[in-house]
Amino acid sequence: MVAPDLPRRIAFLGFGLIGGSIAKALRRGDRSVDLTAWTPSGIGPAAGARLGVLDRAAATPEAAIDGAELIVLAGPPLAVLANLADLAGPWHAQLAPHATITDVASTKGDIVAAASALGLSFVGGHPMAGREASGIDASVPDLFVDRPWVVAPASGAGEWDVARVEALAGALGARSVRMAPDAHDHAVAAISHLPLVVAAALVESVTSGPDWATERGLAATGWADMTRLARGGPEMGADILATNAAAVAGRLRELRRALDAWIEALEVGTDRPDATQLRERLANARDALMTGTEP
Amino acid sequence: MVAPDLPRRIAFLGFGLIGGSIAKALRRGDRSVDLTAWTPSGIGPAAGARLGVLDRAAATPEAAIDGAELIVLAGPPLAVLANLADLAGPWHAQLAPHATITDVASTKGDIVAAASALGLSFVGGHPMAGREASGIDASVPDLFVDRPWVVAPASGAGEWDVARVEALAGALGARSVRMAPDAHDHAVAAISHLPLVVAAALVESVTSGPDWATERGLAATGWADMTRLARGGPEMGADILATNAAAVAGRLRELRRALDAWIEALEVGTDRPDATQLRERLANARDALMTGTEP
Repeated sequence: MVAPDLPRRIAFLGFGLIGGSIAKALRRGDRSVDLTAWTPSGIGPAAGARLGVLDRAAATPEAAIDGAELIVLAGPPLAVLANLADLAGPWHAQLAPHATITDVASTKGDIVAAASALGLSFVGGHPMAGREASGIDASVPDLFVDRPWVVAPASGAGEWDVARVEALAGALGARSVRMAPDAHDHAVAAISHLPLVVAAALVESVTSGPDWATERGLAATGWADMTRLARGGPEMGADILATNAAAVAGRLRELRRALDAWIEALEVGTDRPDATQLRERLANARDALMTGTEP
Repeated sequence: MVAPDLPRRIAFLGFGLIGGSIAKALRRGDRSVDLTAWTPSGIGPAAGARLGVLDRAAATPEAAIDGAELIVLAGPPLAVLANLADLAGPWHAQLAPHATITDVASTKGDIVAAASALGLSFVGGHPMAGREASGIDASVPDLFVDRPWVVAPASGAGEWDVARVEALAGALGARSVRMAPDAHDHAVAAISHLPLVVAAALVESVTSGPDWATERGLAATGWADMTRLARGGPEMGADILATNAAAVAGRLRELRRALDAWIEALEVGTDRPDATQLRERLANARDALMTGTEP
């Protein structure tokens, strides 16, 4: 049983962790949904077809979108931007008359603005779920269960298009959350993109030191946690940062202020800093993290 | 079967995650080892005795150390420093003639210097293992298996004392690594204490913003990974930072340089930053993390 608005024919352009997880969840829920995918390399769609997750791997993007009611752009942000231009250009003749286009990229401002400018029936999407590993092999059908799925319609999208994307999110167990693209990008800059840059900067600053070989041998779970994001795919990370640069830079400046205050607290000459003050500061951070703060 | 140098009577002053895990591992390996513990609150030792992990909970520190061949100081760094003063002072009469004192605290410079100044038979120790949760309830006997155990003797320790501590590490499945206290503190500043401060600063900078309530609702695994250390006990964290402040501050300054370079790369006015350059930078960080760099 699927939601009435869920399209029957769905095409993916780009097919990795997120696209694969969507397809696995849909396939599990209802065998009658027709699923196809195309990627530049063809590797992910071939694996999906072999696993029975897709009905077929498409040889070309035109073949993938031909007749599709819903097109899911599931590549990195810059690939999504290129897809949008192609969908409004060379691929446009293949688009079904009432096809809805959506995406699952981590940034929304540039993408929704481009889709609006191109007049496409586009509803931006961002499922707030991920894993360390990437690619179809890492995809799992439960990835989106009880997770938020941000929905940000372009100006050319009707409520019908939004309903289709919300039906997709609902069919996957996610909760749709309507957000303006810039508000989304500002928010994920804080809780997703800033952490990525911080992990990379932490790695850069520590591994470039003369004692990294020794330090590496001592590293335990804390180091592993704080650098996990730096192990992700550089292509995806670069696209995300390139399309949300200003918001991330703003967040970095705020983080720098917090770090400067820590440097000030710790650089007290030959004395030992006051442990009570350090404890209060750490306790305050923990409380803010655990309980949240209302604006 | 335990190593011949492993003492038969061991006393813990402080008994949480690390002390509890040591006791559980020893108890599993050899029922004939006599284990006791004291803490200011008595809660951990009572639980340990109830679980059969300890032979008895000691009512006073003097009762705990009475007759012990090995005394394991298993509280936070400032508690260890206070213990050392007491062991050289009011508790000294209770010390067995050839007792060895060790600790498991995360910093070694101040502690080993204090023990040397006090003339104690002290061998500093630092098992490079941890968990997010703390306390005896979180302790597990396998915590130290295949992990490094840093060993840093004070000037008053003989090779006999060092052998005992290395036998303890070996009995737990850990690998002893002899290090100078300052080299240890410099290394763990990078891979353990800097990550703690970064996690706290990340929480401070994001949760203090006006949109934290929204952002919190969107946070996924990346945010959870990068803030896990900020959920740890503020007492332990404060003691660690207080006793390794200069090294951590130095590491923070190096991290700031890396972050400044990221701000520069991302703040390119109205243009989009070059994704190729961002990708190379992220790929370099990933390579440095995965493969290590030889000095």
